[in-house]
Amino acid sequence: MAIAKQAVLGIGDDCAVINYTKDKYLLLTIDMLIEGVHFDLKKAGRGRVGRKALAVSLSDIAAMGGIPKYCLISMGVPPNAPLKIIDNFYVGLLKLAKEYSVELIGGDTNRSEKFIFDICVIGEVEKRYLVRRSGAKRGDGIYVTGRLGGSIKDKQYDFTPRVKEARVLVKNFKVNAMIDISDGLSSDLRHITESSNVGAIIYESRIPVSKSCRSVKEALTDGEDFELLFTMPGDISEKILTKRLGIPVKIIGEIKNRREGVKIINKKGKKRDLRTLGYRHF
Amino acid sequence: MAIAKQAVLGIGDDCAVINYTKDKYLLLTIDMLIEGVHFDLKKAGRGRVGRKALAVSLSDIAAMGGIPKYCLISMGVPPNAPLKIIDNFYVGLLKLAKEYSVELIGGDTNRSEKFIFDICVIGEVEKRYLVRRSGAKRGDGIYVTGRLGGSIKDKQYDFTPRVKEARVLVKNFKVNAMIDISDGLSSDLRHITESSNVGAIIYESRIPVSKSCRSVKEALTDGEDFELLFTMPGDISEKILTKRLGIPVKIIGEIKNRREGVKIINKKGKKRDLRTLGYRHF
Repeated sequence: MAIAKQAVLGIGDDCAVINYTKDKYLLLTIDMLIEGVHFDLKKAGRGRVGRKALAVSLSDIAAMGGIPKYCLISMGVPPNAPLKIIDNFYVGLLKLAKEYSVELIGGDTNRSEKFIFDICVIGEVEKRYLVRRSGAKRGDGIYVTGRLGGSIKDKQYDFTPRVKEARVLVKNFKVNAMIDISDGLSSDLRHITESSNVGAIIYESRIPVSKSCRSVKEALTDGEDFELLFTMPGDISEKILTKRLGIPVKIIGEIKNRREGVKIINKKGKKRDLRTLGYRHF
Repeated sequence: MAIAKQAVLGIGDDCAVINYTKDKYLLLTIDMLIEGVHFDLKKAGRGRVGRKALAVSLSDIAAMGGIPKYCLISMGVPPNAPLKIIDNFYVGLLKLAKEYSVELIGGDTNRSEKFIFDICVIGEVEKRYLVRRSGAKRGDGIYVTGRLGGSIKDKQYDFTPRVKEARVLVKNFKVNAMIDISDGLSSDLRHITESSNVGAIIYESRIPVSKSCRSVKEALTDGEDFELLFTMPGDISEKILTKRLGIPVKIIGEIKNRREGVKIINKKGKKRDLRTLGYRHF
């Protein structure tokens, strides 16, 4: 069944990567939102679902260090759906697209029982700036932007895809590995350690817990934060990064040897396995 | 809301077109199949849905004169779906992918009430070979490959995406406009005439009606034939094209001035408007 591999990077990172120009790669990512599974149209309100449908993919492009350029959208629409809902969806989507200079270039609309939105975003990244999940090195600091947890309330719709911040990072610092936090810090840190074949230790006291979040456990497992989790040689201070990125950046731990596992040290100094909570199998 | 247009071609053709290398464009197309709307898993049987999900997009790449290279897939999967169904889907999809040297480079799997498959295919085409819907010229012959109609029975699953045939066409002939017949000959001819700002006349007697099709009307409106409909200067005989492409090719009519409308001449010589039957609004 094997097909000669031409892609630079296939399944297993935030985006697929293919050759583009002499100096650049093309990034591709696809994300599906289904009514009743990923969103509640009534609760979400006007335009927010359209915004989110695009934003999750912009966040994937950011996680590779890239710039989003184009998007295509497939929709499933109930036959008797009010046109207003579709209009609102596009208002939310196109407003965000404009902010990020993303061009809607194609689509497919289908009859469906529930609303379905599937968005493919195409971006580009200079070859020298591409960041994968798999480049974390022993001794790297583990950094996270913003605050984590409690996104189920509002942030899941209103989050800022960290494209600008990721660009500052890849242009000015030696980022070894990066991912966006969609499954939850706990799971997404594991995605980095597993693909980089390393271990890690993080400190509970250093995790930036969002105000709407009731516990560190939620901040570890809630998911849909869409903040950046990245690793790089640990001599850059939080203060410098916070200033350069314009948003809070915290060092939450350090990359270790694989055999040391992935651990968390709680506020009493006790070391435990960071279990893979928060992972969505679907 | 306007975003600076960077794409060569956005919404309104079989694929979106963006700049790629010095000599080539990149082609992008997205297509969604929903259980109960586009397919019946029980009736379709093993692997056929997976094959079709990819094949419809390969057909779109063919219609632009291109070569498919990569695909990404978003799936919606019911929580208790037997793994065998998903396996079979991938067997069908990957078998066709292998035949066409298409590499699966990304995906997203979600929980869903019904099966949903959304596939984005990326292809490439030499700039000089790109064919749009919009290039039909007065005096062009109107050509169609294969036989039309009755695809609801089997062909909708088993059709051959006409990639090889389209490549022979664009490399050896001056094809002015091309589309794949997905909505039905009647609608897809209108897609060509409207975007080319021309009229057309076709002859009922010349339409290649498939054996499983009961009437010319069905051949005009059934859709899901996934044959090529193209126009080019009319001095190339069916015999030459049939030989070069290795499949039957018929000349069914001629491109006219816009003001002559889009007409069909029946077997008794009577001229009528070719109404837009067979168009699926969703």
